[in-house]
Amino acid sequence: MIRLTLIEARELAESILLHNGFSAAQAQAVTDTVVAGERDGCASHGLYRVLGCVNSLRAGKVAANAEPQVVDQAPSIVRVDAAGGFSQLAFKAGLPLLKEKTRATGIAALAINRCVHFSALWVEIEQLTDAGLVALAFTPSHAWVAPAGGSQPVFGTNPIAFGWPRAGKNPFVFDFATSAIARGDIELHRRAGKAIPEGWGVDAQGQPSTDPNVVLDHGAMLTFGGHKGSALAAMVELIAGPLIGDLTSAESLAYDAGSKSSPYHGELLIALDPKRFLGDAAEQHLARAEGVFESIQGQGARLPSQRRYEARLRSEVEGVQIPQALYNDLKALLA
Amino acid sequence: MIRLTLIEARELAESILLHNGFSAAQAQAVTDTVVAGERDGCASHGLYRVLGCVNSLRAGKVAANAEPQVVDQAPSIVRVDAAGGFSQLAFKAGLPLLKEKTRATGIAALAINRCVHFSALWVEIEQLTDAGLVALAFTPSHAWVAPAGGSQPVFGTNPIAFGWPRAGKNPFVFDFATSAIARGDIELHRRAGKAIPEGWGVDAQGQPSTDPNVVLDHGAMLTFGGHKGSALAAMVELIAGPLIGDLTSAESLAYDAGSKSSPYHGELLIALDPKRFLGDAAEQHLARAEGVFESIQGQGARLPSQRRYEARLRSEVEGVQIPQALYNDLKALLA
Repeated sequence: MIRLTLIEARELAESILLHNGFSAAQAQAVTDTVVAGERDGCASHGLYRVLGCVNSLRAGKVAANAEPQVVDQAPSIVRVDAAGGFSQLAFKAGLPLLKEKTRATGIAALAINRCVHFSALWVEIEQLTDAGLVALAFTPSHAWVAPAGGSQPVFGTNPIAFGWPRAGKNPFVFDFATSAIARGDIELHRRAGKAIPEGWGVDAQGQPSTDPNVVLDHGAMLTFGGHKGSALAAMVELIAGPLIGDLTSAESLAYDAGSKSSPYHGELLIALDPKRFLGDAAEQHLARAEGVFESIQGQGARLPSQRRYEARLRSEVEGVQIPQALYNDLKALLA
Repeated sequence: MIRLTLIEARELAESILLHNGFSAAQAQAVTDTVVAGERDGCASHGLYRVLGCVNSLRAGKVAANAEPQVVDQAPSIVRVDAAGGFSQLAFKAGLPLLKEKTRATGIAALAINRCVHFSALWVEIEQLTDAGLVALAFTPSHAWVAPAGGSQPVFGTNPIAFGWPRAGKNPFVFDFATSAIARGDIELHRRAGKAIPEGWGVDAQGQPSTDPNVVLDHGAMLTFGGHKGSALAAMVELIAGPLIGDLTSAESLAYDAGSKSSPYHGELLIALDPKRFLGDAAEQHLARAEGVFESIQGQGARLPSQRRYEARLRSEVEGVQIPQALYNDLKALLA
């Protein structure tokens, strides 16, 4: 393993993205999120993703110099056309107007269109909870996941993220795929020649399969939570697809045409302002929410994100560690 | 079984509610939803619920003549104070302004406060999809459900409902508890002296239990979908509780003080207008959403609500059937 300070990690990511032709704005926005992922112990959304960014660029699947265009769509809707660039810069461009509209009207939506998307959603959610807002985020991906009772992929891994601000504390944040497991986890089993647990996928006939090759190449992944998870995956597909005028997971996979790039589609965020719901009583009611968290932690259960926050504290002192092989692959992109 | 036409079912419910002292407005709003439940084959939210309404009234837990007060809280927020009456009349009172705000600003919220709540959420969701809007609804209940990794009840059965309008077709609607199973299903097992499947509940030490007595009286119910379902249950607790200035499931259960009445707390609805997101392109993108439904049904999987819509068609022709014992219990309330 190679140890890097957070500053070194940032310099490494940014220099690779710039060297390979990304604009300073795109490079900085991507760097912010991959370093946040690495810092929080989410290696799957960390520096490793810089390889994918450069791959997507070489495959012609991302616009290196895209400048997002912010549209004031309606009193409570912001749209940002990412113009084929990464979702991160589009989010950054739309955030100020989303916050302004949420504070003005109480609830507002940010629709990001035509973006290349590989980011964890919690990075964005935290920027809304930092502003004292409650937030939700949804995005499709590539069609890999079958509906409950089916055998053919329709949905992406379709994550749902949520954040709740807590005075003086890290926010309550969750961010999970509506698939039973990340696609990367099934790929790791394939590389290791290991069977996968039941419940992760089905074969082409819709029968449970524990063979990663069958699930990845012929069958489909499954959602978490049976027909309920499947219903939620469909909701994400609809509200972060057609509702915002953007691609479904099936359309995004078709557009990818086998290049194995990051999905290209849209993202929907919804923000709610407790102060507009509650007026002067906001503080008192948010304090009451702390009782919910105390009931959970008081019985020894964890809050979502707790591990991430612990990793963050460690990384801020000790830096992060990445495998030597990943470090070499990253360095090779500076040649 | 006793067969009733939908008109007879309506007359039975409404006359009982009026006879027992509810105002015409409360009685009519409740009748609309219990007859819709019975018609759609949801006996658990059908005429049976009229017994609970009268029980709640006799226990002093619902205001028979409550007149909901609508508050124009913010450009995208409607609040309705149900004043201790049923959620149904409060929803009806707030619906016109919610639709107006959603069409004006693109996305809006309806917060219902101080309501007695026993209704299925899909009845309300359909009134928004009928208006061409996308809709979400959330409500806590009584604290019966443990968080993932825990053993003590914190959450209610905390349902999530979603609706998507479809031109010329029944809307895509789901409405499910974030608990693994309805509490009533565990109670049915207890009465039948049958064990419950693993995954429905835990004992007081947080160990899996298949004994309905242990789960209901000493342990806790579980959420669906492990830590993901638990995260969603927490979200419902927060956004349909403190965010709207209303009780959590634990607070609602404490208020109930053993009377076994319906929960008394709040409900949050969110509506989104595809026309404000998409302008003139709305029709084209909503048509694209049909591709998602075709991919699901084309492989033999069902859409949520399909069974309900089938039951609805049957009931409109044949009426509904209820058990003789239930009919007798209902008739007794007219004495």
